[in-house]
Amino acid sequence: MHAIALIGAGRIGRIHAANIAAHSRLRLLHVVDRDVDAAASLAERHGARSADADAAINDPEVAGIIVASATDTHIAYTIAAAEAGKPVLCEKPLDQSLAAAVAAADRLDALGARVLLGFNRRFDPHFAALRARLAGGAVGALESLHIVSHDPAPPPPAYVAGSGGMFTDMVIHDFDMARWLLDEEPVGVFASASCLIDPAIGAAGDVDTARTVLRTASGRLCSISSSRRSGYGYDQRIEAFGARGMLRVGNVAETMVETWHEEGATRDRLQNFFLDRYAAAYRAELDHFAEVIAGAAPAITHRDGVAALALAAAATRSLHIGRMETP
Amino acid sequence: MHAIALIGAGRIGRIHAANIAAHSRLRLLHVVDRDVDAAASLAERHGARSADADAAINDPEVAGIIVASATDTHIAYTIAAAEAGKPVLCEKPLDQSLAAAVAAADRLDALGARVLLGFNRRFDPHFAALRARLAGGAVGALESLHIVSHDPAPPPPAYVAGSGGMFTDMVIHDFDMARWLLDEEPVGVFASASCLIDPAIGAAGDVDTARTVLRTASGRLCSISSSRRSGYGYDQRIEAFGARGMLRVGNVAETMVETWHEEGATRDRLQNFFLDRYAAAYRAELDHFAEVIAGAAPAITHRDGVAALALAAAATRSLHIGRMETP
Amino acid sequence: MHAIALIGAGRIGRIHAANIAAHSRLRLLHVVDRDVDAAASLAERHGARSADADAAINDPEVAGIIVASATDTHIAYTIAAAEAGKPVLCEKPLDQSLAAAVAAADRLDALGARVLLGFNRRFDPHFAALRARLAGGAVGALESLHIVSHDPAPPPPAYVAGSGGMFTDMVIHDFDMARWLLDEEPVGVFASASCLIDPAIGAAGDVDTARTVLRTASGRLCSISSSRRSGYGYDQRIEAFGARGMLRVGNVAETMVETWHEEGATRDRLQNFFLDRYAAAYRAELDHFAEVIAGAAPAITHRDGVAALALAAAATRSLHIGRMETP
Amino acid sequence: MHAIALIGAGRIGRIHAANIAAHSRLRLLHVVDRDVDAAASLAERHGARSADADAAINDPEVAGIIVASATDTHIAYTIAAAEAGKPVLCEKPLDQSLAAAVAAADRLDALGARVLLGFNRRFDPHFAALRARLAGGAVGALESLHIVSHDPAPPPPAYVAGSGGMFTDMVIHDFDMARWLLDEEPVGVFASASCLIDPAIGAAGDVDTARTVLRTASGRLCSISSSRRSGYGYDQRIEAFGARGMLRVGNVAETMVETWHEEGATRDRLQNFFLDRYAAAYRAELDHFAEVIAGAAPAITHRDGVAALALAAAATRSLHIGRMETP
Repeated sequence: MHAIALIGAGRIGRIHAANIAAHSRLRLLHVVDRDVDAAASLAERHGARSADADAAINDPEVAGIIVASATDTHIAYTIAAAEAGKPVLCEKPLDQSLAAAVAAADRLDALGARVLLGFNRRFDPHFAALRARLAGGAVGALESLHIVSHDPAPPPPAYVAGSGGMFTDMVIHDFDMARWLLDEEPVGVFASASCLIDPAIGAAGDVDTARTVLRTASGRLCSISSSRRSGYGYDQRIEAFGARGMLRVGNVAETMVETWHEEGATRDRLQNFFLDRYAAAYRAELDHFAEVIAGAAPAITHRDGVAALALAAAATRSLHIGRMETP
Repeated sequence: MHAIALIGAGRIGRIHAANIAAHSRLRLLHVVDRDVDAAASLAERHGARSADADAAINDPEVAGIIVASATDTHIAYTIAAAEAGKPVLCEKPLDQSLAAAVAAADRLDALGARVLLGFNRRFDPHFAALRARLAGGAVGALESLHIVSHDPAPPPPAYVAGSGGMFTDMVIHDFDMARWLLDEEPVGVFASASCLIDPAIGAAGDVDTARTVLRTASGRLCSISSSRRSGYGYDQRIEAFGARGMLRVGNVAETMVETWHEEGATRDRLQNFFLDRYAAAYRAELDHFAEVIAGAAPAITHRDGVAALALAAAATRSLHIGRMETP
Repeated sequence: MHAIALIGAGRIGRIHAANIAAHSRLRLLHVVDRDVDAAASLAERHGARSADADAAINDPEVAGIIVASATDTHIAYTIAAAEAGKPVLCEKPLDQSLAAAVAAADRLDALGARVLLGFNRRFDPHFAALRARLAGGAVGALESLHIVSHDPAPPPPAYVAGSGGMFTDMVIHDFDMARWLLDEEPVGVFASASCLIDPAIGAAGDVDTARTVLRTASGRLCSISSSRRSGYGYDQRIEAFGARGMLRVGNVAETMVETWHEEGATRDRLQNFFLDRYAAAYRAELDHFAEVIAGAAPAITHRDGVAALALAAAATRSLHIGRMETP
Repeated sequence: MHAIALIGAGRIGRIHAANIAAHSRLRLLHVVDRDVDAAASLAERHGARSADADAAINDPEVAGIIVASATDTHIAYTIAAAEAGKPVLCEKPLDQSLAAAVAAADRLDALGARVLLGFNRRFDPHFAALRARLAGGAVGALESLHIVSHDPAPPPPAYVAGSGGMFTDMVIHDFDMARWLLDEEPVGVFASASCLIDPAIGAAGDVDTARTVLRTASGRLCSISSSRRSGYGYDQRIEAFGARGMLRVGNVAETMVETWHEEGATRDRLQNFFLDRYAAAYRAELDHFAEVIAGAAPAITHRDGVAALALAAAATRSLHIGRMETP
């Protein structure tokens, strides 16, 4: 059983804690949080201890660190863990600043760090199956993608103000999915976006509705449809167009119940919350982290974090100047 | 252009008249109806003439007769047409009485009649494609069937009283589908039924909700789910279970529009009316009748009408004695 | 943490053991099996001990007993647990013999036993949601049901020979679902069945393909489609027809991936194995057992086991005499 | 019965001819084609006469003109018809040249011409139902659109060379759909495209795979996914995202047959050919033209043709300079 130190006792931290508790090869040893009551309460629930970050990271018993704290602390904790020679599972994004992320990545490379960056969607069984079939040639060579990623409801304006903007905060997941599925780096990014949902988001300098187009050197194309609010649950879909057909992943409903009535047939509502929709992905991600602790190379690294941030930065520039940008 | 005499200017007659008008090898010459105003009005709409039955049937110009009049006149008109040596398209059922139908079929055989019995569902493109794939071995040898046939809303009690009962009036279509798809005669029929929808139907001595099981000599099974009222449109589905899989035909919606909302995703309502759902079937049936006039053997004959009636009679007996009956 | 003694280290026993390990209020203390190596191995995997049945049942530390051993031992262990005053989760069926089950149920009642009978499908989230909506009036008063329950592939003939027959072994689940959803006892049972899949099943005196019709006092109807082999995975569907519409539960696919190709659009294959399809049901069933240990009344008791067995016996009689039987 | 002169006896001309023949208020009088044998043959099939264009247009018996000839003759015939005071149904595009189309539109306005431009998809019952529900407020105010329009297979390279390019030839339909559904003019157009399907298309100076983004003054967004070859039939879908949900139109399969097998459940193949997919749209378009002849204002005019051409021209410019263009 590998002992884990978890930094961050918030929403994501609690998910990781529960998954560690249910994992056959991991156990939760330390919980770290600026809010010491939150840390203590989460630690107690799983038979772990509250600790400060330094002690937790450097405890020789600890085999791996999970960084699920505020974004502006991701780099510092990840580097500290790397300096201690410990593998890290770091939540996305690495940082809101591309420059800071690049500098951190250089430092992590110099340290020989083993960082698993938490782009959880790559571990979703539906998307992973799509990619495996694509790789297996089910529809021939990939030509283009369309990704839909609409949140159920917008975040509070205060969150938006500190989020780094819609592309860095939200679309970054889709940039990672696009890179993963295109199997080739985008060389051009175009974005157009509006504030149509909540004027407070616009007042905070952000947008809530967007279309983005990515283009690779060989001419593969990817469009991304983004919205902070769907009105019908968490809309997470991908279509991959190949030379002989299309693979697609549809949405996941809460149950398979359908109601047939005068107006038609209604399938059950969509899973509404990302922690429900991606519950299996978080478990699989943790399972991969257990393999990383045991010596495997991380499937997603800080360099993937930098690449996604570069796309987000290019998309944000494109928004203001109206042309395709090089990331 | 083959000239057609149409007997019956009611709901089904009007469908046939419009389809004849649009057909490239048929033209409507005579319309016959006890209600002479109805006959005249329908004839006028399509440039035809109102006539009495004898004159129409025996007009040498007439190449084919369509019998779409009241059920109790089907046999007389069909025999008259056969005596005149004309091919007949006769609406189902041949008669409400199995004994009368058997006698009529004997007479029609003696006359060498060419009768296309109007079990229109065999011409439905969806069900016809299912049968073609079954015959093509898409799922291996057929083992069992399940047929769902629920009407949108119950008929008026007055109609029920004269209908011959739910099995002779409504389930008879499904008996024909079962015979057609099983490709083997049922040797046993069991039915259980209730009056759950409209007490007036029960007061008229009939039922409105039923389950029927058919069994062939080789042990193939077919269940039929029947209801006079669905509450969600015209429910017409078939599942065919074979040695290597299942073929099924689902319902047909009015359009492909889906509405995604908080409660789920609602597909468009079902086609509600049998004349909409089976519009293509009526056209294909008429097209086959044009081939029969030109010399082809009818795909469905009065003998199929007798066989379906025998199943309906056996199901009705089964209802009362609670055991599987031989048709 | 309630300590559990698990009797039976086979396929189902291992599922219960893993679910106990992951449960927040239960812990596995003893594992009992005639095959002591199997017991020891399963116990070791979860930090429990191998024990003999008497010792395990009567260990004062043990708060609940799970009986997942061979069917012919269910009654003895359940009564022993009841005599020790312990709540029992007993796998279905209570016994293959209806007479033995009735006698056992009388004895259990006399002992004031608290028995949760393991009809796991009632805990499936899809079927549970269907029932909740039915109860909530989503489609008005229930009129009829159709249950499809086709296994992916037939069991070995040796299993069939000792199974008690298709109705007692397999359709018994559907009899329980029918009773649960009809909310009224069936008063008539009709079954017709064949051996179409594997002649060895017929040689063992059993059938592999069936249609069953149930009828309640108020005239509600339920048809059940049963097959030992689908050719397309584990087919588990229910349609509930009410006065204002239909509720239905469709099959569960392995993922939401669709492949669009020249022949059409293929959804992912069905979950093939009952332990995958009902994984969530087994967890919810165990969670309910934790509540039973804490004092709740079991949602399903030995009396439900007797009622389902009585329907299976009546269906088997109906098969041979061709008429509707009273259970 | 209004008499129609049909100019063009090619693929589309034959569709219009057959629809006129089946229409209750229209009859085909003249067929015009440079290929006089083609004109004569089509005329004969429907009891019409072959004629030259001038005579046909100016025949006082003729009440309406349909222009379905080669694109470079659309303007001349449409103006000739307008000069003769006759309503015209003109196939899309008005012309390949935006400048020529603008000049023609000015002349048509000066003549008070009544031109129905043949953007047939507006008459498709599925898309029309989507728009009606959008207008009815089913999902609140429209925020964004996504249109998928992939052809089954690429045209011959020779066709491509003379087509005016993918945006003017193919995406122009989607530009019209976008304008119709957005209910607001696009003020910005961005396109990125590649030649991934057939190098001969690239050699002819064109592209075969594209993503386009449109933006209106109020910030509404529309993405368009275009491909000259799907590998799975004619892919024609629209998603409309509003403040309270999404409306979408899915593809139309040839039948409702599904095949369930080991690999999953396969729905029937898509309608492959645009004349099948849009058969109902061509009928409804002609029906509207009959209303225009009777005095109604055309629902789509030459000005809509100009506006769609302007979007195609802007998209083509955007392709080369990599920035959003004003149409």
